[in-house]
Amino acid sequence: MIDTKLIYLDNNATTKVDEKVVEAMMPYFSQYYGNPSSIYEFGGKNSKVIKEAREQIKDFFGANSAKEIFFTASGSESANMAIRGILSADKSKNHLITTKVEHPCVLNLHKQLEKEGYNVTYVGVNSAGELNTDELYEAVNEKTALVSCMYANNETGSIFPVEEIAEKVKSINSKTKMYVDAVQAAGKININVKDTKIDLMGISGHKFHAPKGIGALYVNSSTLITPLVIGGHQENGKRAGTENVAFIVGMAKAAQMAKDSLNYELTEVKRLRDKLETGLLSKIYNARLNSSSHNRVPNTTNIGFEYIEGELILLNMNDIGICASSGSACTSGSLDPSHVLKAMGVPFTALHGSIRFSLSKYTTEEEIDYTIEKMPAIIQKLAAISPFQKELKELRERKGII
Amino acid sequence: MIDTKLIYLDNNATTKVDEKVVEAMMPYFSQYYGNPSSIYEFGGKNSKVIKEAREQIKDFFGANSAKEIFFTASGSESANMAIRGILSADKSKNHLITTKVEHPCVLNLHKQLEKEGYNVTYVGVNSAGELNTDELYEAVNEKTALVSCMYANNETGSIFPVEEIAEKVKSINSKTKMYVDAVQAAGKININVKDTKIDLMGISGHKFHAPKGIGALYVNSSTLITPLVIGGHQENGKRAGTENVAFIVGMAKAAQMAKDSLNYELTEVKRLRDKLETGLLSKIYNARLNSSSHNRVPNTTNIGFEYIEGELILLNMNDIGICASSGSACTSGSLDPSHVLKAMGVPFTALHGSIRFSLSKYTTEEEIDYTIEKMPAIIQKLAAISPFQKELKELRERKGII
Repeated sequence: MIDTKLIYLDNNATTKVDEKVVEAMMPYFSQYYGNPSSIYEFGGKNSKVIKEAREQIKDFFGANSAKEIFFTASGSESANMAIRGILSADKSKNHLITTKVEHPCVLNLHKQLEKEGYNVTYVGVNSAGELNTDELYEAVNEKTALVSCMYANNETGSIFPVEEIAEKVKSINSKTKMYVDAVQAAGKININVKDTKIDLMGISGHKFHAPKGIGALYVNSSTLITPLVIGGHQENGKRAGTENVAFIVGMAKAAQMAKDSLNYELTEVKRLRDKLETGLLSKIYNARLNSSSHNRVPNTTNIGFEYIEGELILLNMNDIGICASSGSACTSGSLDPSHVLKAMGVPFTALHGSIRFSLSKYTTEEEIDYTIEKMPAIIQKLAAISPFQKELKELRERKGII
Repeated sequence: MIDTKLIYLDNNATTKVDEKVVEAMMPYFSQYYGNPSSIYEFGGKNSKVIKEAREQIKDFFGANSAKEIFFTASGSESANMAIRGILSADKSKNHLITTKVEHPCVLNLHKQLEKEGYNVTYVGVNSAGELNTDELYEAVNEKTALVSCMYANNETGSIFPVEEIAEKVKSINSKTKMYVDAVQAAGKININVKDTKIDLMGISGHKFHAPKGIGALYVNSSTLITPLVIGGHQENGKRAGTENVAFIVGMAKAAQMAKDSLNYELTEVKRLRDKLETGLLSKIYNARLNSSSHNRVPNTTNIGFEYIEGELILLNMNDIGICASSGSACTSGSLDPSHVLKAMGVPFTALHGSIRFSLSKYTTEEEIDYTIEKMPAIIQKLAAISPFQKELKELRERKGII
């Protein structure tokens, strides 16, 4: 299928690297390949290039100073660096708060931290995927070192009120730090960290058309962290390793382009996402929306197809060139249903047949029309072989379809 | 200078990405950009691509199984992942051994581990840069968790007998693990880890014509480590984060090319290095070789120019387009003289004026001839303004030059 047609609706898993990003990176492989730490011009000029990129990423975060930006190799590294970094810099508190719907890099790290002796409160969400913020605030106490909360959920697109959470948490314990995993928000909604009380924020380049293998971490200048990777003086002593000059330049270019096309994302990408969502929900009787219809990033919709199996849906979509996913790519390989949808209380009848569609600036109207046209037949075919014929019949009748 | 001429003799700092490596990486940015963890073909094929690359890197290490290979973002990450990973997997031992001449990613990590309660023995070297292995063996005891030793020194090129060290250490304490930092050995000498008792070994792509931002760690199948970056299932659960498909492919290509050109490295690159070394030592009366003349990687020479200042030499070399370094790039920015040369007992008269020249397969005879031709005038000019005129005169007379 790939060679004939590819409809890529899995942009929350990863994105196509923008060709302008590739162009920006190219000179730093075989032409300007000097080590930025070198004393001679050929190396030193790459140090200036990184400085410029750091300014651009600062602007992308809406941070006060480029000194608050650290380059990493991934969103996962950013999260680990932030969370481990806070906890080793100040060992006086042993309580952590996070949510039940975090990405594995936050969730699994917290599970590990429990084994190391930390107490962790996992805050839930309601059936629309919205965070139980009261539950979160009630959990904050004098021992709370850190609250880690995503900006937008990777599976449902739900936006969490991280700015409000930071305000409120600090009003309860001014010494509690807050880490925000903004991997799925960056490039999709406006971020302006300097106007908030958020202490740390992580992003990943490959979610906004930079390559896989580059990320960044914002650390407020009044927040102290220890490094995760110790060694040379790079990244102001906070992250050792020769700088990935090409990808740093590429991510800065992608960030600038994402900032410039934010309006397109919030209008046109949203329009196509809404069209897809409305189309599928109206044409397929056993489809249900997993998540609130509002307060979501503009590119994501998560739809449960009741009484059928998600993997089968995906394989049938694959056959006609449509890429989407069930759960997150980082949790795939496991047959367990999505921890996010489980936390939302999505009924088991829809849990296994839930599909995330995530669009990008490259998604076209034709692709959306094609998907709306082709999905009903796939779902119908799979419904016909479902062992839940009685339930499907009841559902059809309830919806007034004969 | 850069635009007119560039003689790059700093290949231990970083290397030019081979154009064939760039070519191999290119399709994985904007064409085959799928997430390897995805269920659909477009993503899944990248998982196959990574599998092939892992096989090639396995061959590069001379390891038994591709399951023993983990991709990282740098040599520094490989070292931190190995050392932290061993120590958290088994907390029963609190003694570590390393050398005084390690790269900062190993040395500074050990300094941090001392603060965390570990006892560390730092083994010295002799004036030729050779490791005091007896001192190392005497330090091994029942509490020794790990010995970390580089394969080849980044500043002098000295090769340490890591295979012999692994054998001997295990004969003293069979439970002690051994990590080898092979960053400066990979691509310069033959590595065949399966025939050794080495447990872990790290490499960095950008030292052998792959890009900056990719590395690998070999972990023997009988050795248990915990992950440094926790999150998704990638790298068999040992290193979370969406795989850097392009750079993984690039490093595998570079590794294969390095393997193929190893003979060229050991003969032609060595010949040019020897020519440079002999030329400078014979033409410049205050030049001395820092390191044993034998048992070195073929591309490196470290020469001390007595009674003059290294930074001034480098800046004068920069003016005529020659790139080299004093100390390692990762320790630059500090005015302290090289910890490696200090450990060797290089006299302070040569310590500050020591320059590392490191060649690559791209180095030409013309470039070496030009360097031999131009260096004497630079050194002469700087000697003329040195405050050590009396000492320089004595040195000239001792060498029989009027």
